[in-house]
Amino acid sequence: MPLLQAGPDRIAAAARRVMMRCDELAGVTAAPGSIERVYLSPEHARVNRLAAAWMREAGLRSWQDAAGNQLGRIERTVDPDPAAPALMIGSHLDTVIDAGRFDGILGVLMALEVVRLLRDPGSETASVPLPFAIEVVAFSDEEGTRFGKALLGSSALAGTWDADWWELTDQHGVTLRQAFREFGLDPGRVGEAGRRPEQLVGYLEAHIEQGPELDRAGSPLAVVSSIASARRFQVTVEGEARHAGGTPYDMRHDALLGASEAALAVERICAAEHHIVGTVGQFEAFPGAVNVIPGEAVFSLDLRGELDETRDRVWDRLGRELDAIMGRRGLRWRAVEVHNAPAVACAPLLRDVVAEGIAATVGLDAPETRSVSHAVPTIFSRAGHDAMAVGAITDVGMLFLRNPDGVSHHPDEAVSAADVALGIRALTEAVLQLAHAARP
Amino acid sequence: MPLLQAGPDRIAAAARRVMMRCDELAGVTAAPGSIERVYLSPEHARVNRLAAAWMREAGLRSWQDAAGNQLGRIERTVDPDPAAPALMIGSHLDTVIDAGRFDGILGVLMALEVVRLLRDPGSETASVPLPFAIEVVAFSDEEGTRFGKALLGSSALAGTWDADWWELTDQHGVTLRQAFREFGLDPGRVGEAGRRPEQLVGYLEAHIEQGPELDRAGSPLAVVSSIASARRFQVTVEGEARHAGGTPYDMRHDALLGASEAALAVERICAAEHHIVGTVGQFEAFPGAVNVIPGEAVFSLDLRGELDETRDRVWDRLGRELDAIMGRRGLRWRAVEVHNAPAVACAPLLRDVVAEGIAATVGLDAPETRSVSHAVPTIFSRAGHDAMAVGAITDVGMLFLRNPDGVSHHPDEAVSAADVALGIRALTEAVLQLAHAARP
Repeated sequence: MPLLQAGPDRIAAAARRVMMRCDELAGVTAAPGSIERVYLSPEHARVNRLAAAWMREAGLRSWQDAAGNQLGRIERTVDPDPAAPALMIGSHLDTVIDAGRFDGILGVLMALEVVRLLRDPGSETASVPLPFAIEVVAFSDEEGTRFGKALLGSSALAGTWDADWWELTDQHGVTLRQAFREFGLDPGRVGEAGRRPEQLVGYLEAHIEQGPELDRAGSPLAVVSSIASARRFQVTVEGEARHAGGTPYDMRHDALLGASEAALAVERICAAEHHIVGTVGQFEAFPGAVNVIPGEAVFSLDLRGELDETRDRVWDRLGRELDAIMGRRGLRWRAVEVHNAPAVACAPLLRDVVAEGIAATVGLDAPETRSVSHAVPTIFSRAGHDAMAVGAITDVGMLFLRNPDGVSHHPDEAVSAADVALGIRALTEAVLQLAHAARP
Repeated sequence: MPLLQAGPDRIAAAARRVMMRCDELAGVTAAPGSIERVYLSPEHARVNRLAAAWMREAGLRSWQDAAGNQLGRIERTVDPDPAAPALMIGSHLDTVIDAGRFDGILGVLMALEVVRLLRDPGSETASVPLPFAIEVVAFSDEEGTRFGKALLGSSALAGTWDADWWELTDQHGVTLRQAFREFGLDPGRVGEAGRRPEQLVGYLEAHIEQGPELDRAGSPLAVVSSIASARRFQVTVEGEARHAGGTPYDMRHDALLGASEAALAVERICAAEHHIVGTVGQFEAFPGAVNVIPGEAVFSLDLRGELDETRDRVWDRLGRELDAIMGRRGLRWRAVEVHNAPAVACAPLLRDVVAEGIAATVGLDAPETRSVSHAVPTIFSRAGHDAMAVGAITDVGMLFLRNPDGVSHHPDEAVSAADVALGIRALTEAVLQLAHAARP
C-alpha cells in the first residue's frame, strides 16, 4: 500500500514544473546556443540564485555554503530541531561543455518537488510524520569541467577537500584559489562546508541513467545497486621521431601506431568482460607534423567496472598486452594513474526504500519482505555521481530515470515528462517509506 | 680520368669549412638550445647576410631576390656575359622545428666549395673552360614550417607562386603577405624572383639522404633517379560523442577507434608495397575529454611513392579499406587532399654527370658510355626537395650523401666530414663533366 496518495494531476503538474525549470536553467550558459555552466562562473552564481528562490518558494530555508553549493532545509515535523539530522536529496547544477539539460539538474529539481509533496500533501500523506529534517542540495561542481577535478562541491560537503586542489588551474591559468575569491568565497573557510556523519540520515539522488539499459528494457525507473569504480590513466608511448619520407618501415618506431594498437586492445579486452568499459577519450601525437613519424603519443584511459577487483584485473591484463605491443614495435610505454575511485555500494536500507518507491509507482507487487524485489530493475551506475563523494560521510541511495537511447553529455540528452512524473512519485514514496521505517 | 685534380688536403679543408659553417648556422635560431629558422623571420635575414658574405668571399656577386632567396653568381669563362644561362647549384637554409644542422644547409655550403674549386683550382682544373655561368642558391623556404606550405622560396624562383598563398597564416595569425612586408619585401614584386627556362642550364642539389639506404649499403654517395611523388590528405572520421561510462560497446560509434584502425591499415597496406611509404603524423580526437567517447577524429596522411601510378593505386586501396573499417563501426569518413606533387624525374644528362662524379670520386670504374654505371648507387628520394619546384623550369639532378642511421628532422641528424669531402669532389667533378659535355 503506497504511503503517497497524491493524485495523478498533482504529480503531472510537478513533472511539468521540473521540465520547465530544466529549460529555464538551460538558458543560463556561458555559450549562447549551447549549455555550458562551470564551477565559480557568473552562470554558477545565477543558477544558485534561481535555486534559492525556488527553494524558498517551496518553504525551505536556503543558503549557499562555503564551497558554493546551494542548500535548502525543512525541519522534521516530530520535535522540530534545527540541529536534528537531515536526509539530503539532490544532485548538481554544473555542466560539461555543450551539455544536455538534465544531467544533475533533474535530480535537484525533483528533490524540490518531493519536498513540496511532503509539505503540502493535499491528501492523507501528512499522516506520516517526518522524523528527520530534509535538505535539498544543489552541488556546485560534479563534472570537473573547469579545473579537471570532478566532485569538488560534494567533496567539500563530505569534508574531503584536498589542499593540493587550490593550485589547480583552468584553461586561462586562473587557480581554484583565485576563482574562489572572484566568486566571493573565502578559501580559508572551505572547511565550513563540511558536514559530519551525525548531522545526516543519508543521501538520495535521482539522475538520468546516462546509458541505454532502461530504454532497452522498456522500464522507466531503476534502483541503483552501486556506483562504478573508475580508474583513469595517462599513458605515454615513446618511439623515435623521424622523417616520414626517408624512413622505411623496418626502421620505424612509430609511437602513434603503438598507441593506436593500444586503443584497439582496450576495446577488445574490455568488450570481452562483463560490466567493464574502457575508453580512450584523449589522444595526441608529437611532434604532430604531417611529414614526421610521431616519436611520442599520449592518450587517456578511463576504466570502469561494477567491481574494483574485475576492473583491476582488466588493467593488469591491459598492461601485459601493452608490453607485448610496444615490445614488438620497439617502443617504450608508461602510465600515470590520475584518478582512482573505488566502487561505492548503495546502502541496503536506501536501496530497499527506493525499490519500494518504484514498485509502488509502476504498479509492481510491493516486496513482501524488506529486500529489493526481483521485479524492480536494479542496475549499477557506470557514471560517477555526487553520491560517490557523499558516500564518505553517510549512506547513499540512487534512483535512475530512463534516458532515451542513452545519450548524455550531449545536447540531445533527454528524459520524458511522463517518466519524470513516475520518478517524482517513486522518490517521494521512498522518503515516506524511510520515514515510516525510522519512526520513533 | 677525373677532370678535377685538386689534392686531398684541398678537399679536406673544404669539407672542414662546410662542417664549421653548418655549426655556425646552427647557432642562428629562434629557439636557443635547438635549431629553428623559419621563413621571413629575423633568423632568415641573419643567415642570408652570412650566406651573402661567404658568397662574396668566394668571388660571387650576391643578391637577395624578391622572395627572400639569397643568390650568388660567377660568369662563364668562355665569352663572359651577365645574361648568359647559368647552372644553378644549391639547396635551402630554412629548417623544421628542433631541426638538424645539415638538411638543406649542407647543399648550399657544398655549392660554395664547388665554386671555390672551379675558380681557384690550384691545378690543371682550369683547363676545362666554363661554358655557362654558375649561380649558388640558398632557398628561403623549403620546409614550409611557418605557413604550412612547403617550397615557397623555390616556387617563387620557378615562377609558380600562387596568389592564394598570400592569405596563409602562421601560428600567430600573421599572413604571408604581412610577413613579406615585415621582412622588407614587396608582395607585389614576388614575380621578379621568377626565372625563365632559357636563363638556366639546369639545377644540381646535394643533400643528406634523410634515410638509411646508403648507410645500410656502406656507400657514401648516391645519384638520385627521381624525387618521390607525394600526396597528403586530411582525413576526418565522424561517429557519435557519448558518455564514456554509460554507453556499452554495442552502442558506440567511436571515431578514435576507427581512426586507429585506419592508421594501422595505412601501415599494413603500404608496407606490403614496394617503394611506398604512408605516414600518419597528426592525430586528434574530439571533444578530447577523458570521459567522453570521441565523436570525431582527424588525422593526416602523407603518402609517397617512387611512381605516381603505384601511389595512386595504394590510395584507392586504402579508400576501400577505410570504407570497410568505418562501415563495420557505423562511422563516416571523408578525405581532403591538401597536397599533390607528382614524381619529378632527374634529367638523364644531370643524372649521368653526377654518377660520373661519384664514380671518379670513390674509385669506381668510370662508365664507358654516357649512362649511369651499375656500380654507382642509384636511389630515389622519398623526401621532397627544392629540386621538385625548380623542375618546373629546368632540368634537375641530385647527389645524396650518406646519413648515418637515416636520422633527419631531428637534432641527431648527421653526416661525416669524410663523406662531405667525397661529396664536394663528386659534385665538382659532375660540374666539370657537364662543362666538358657542353663545350662549344
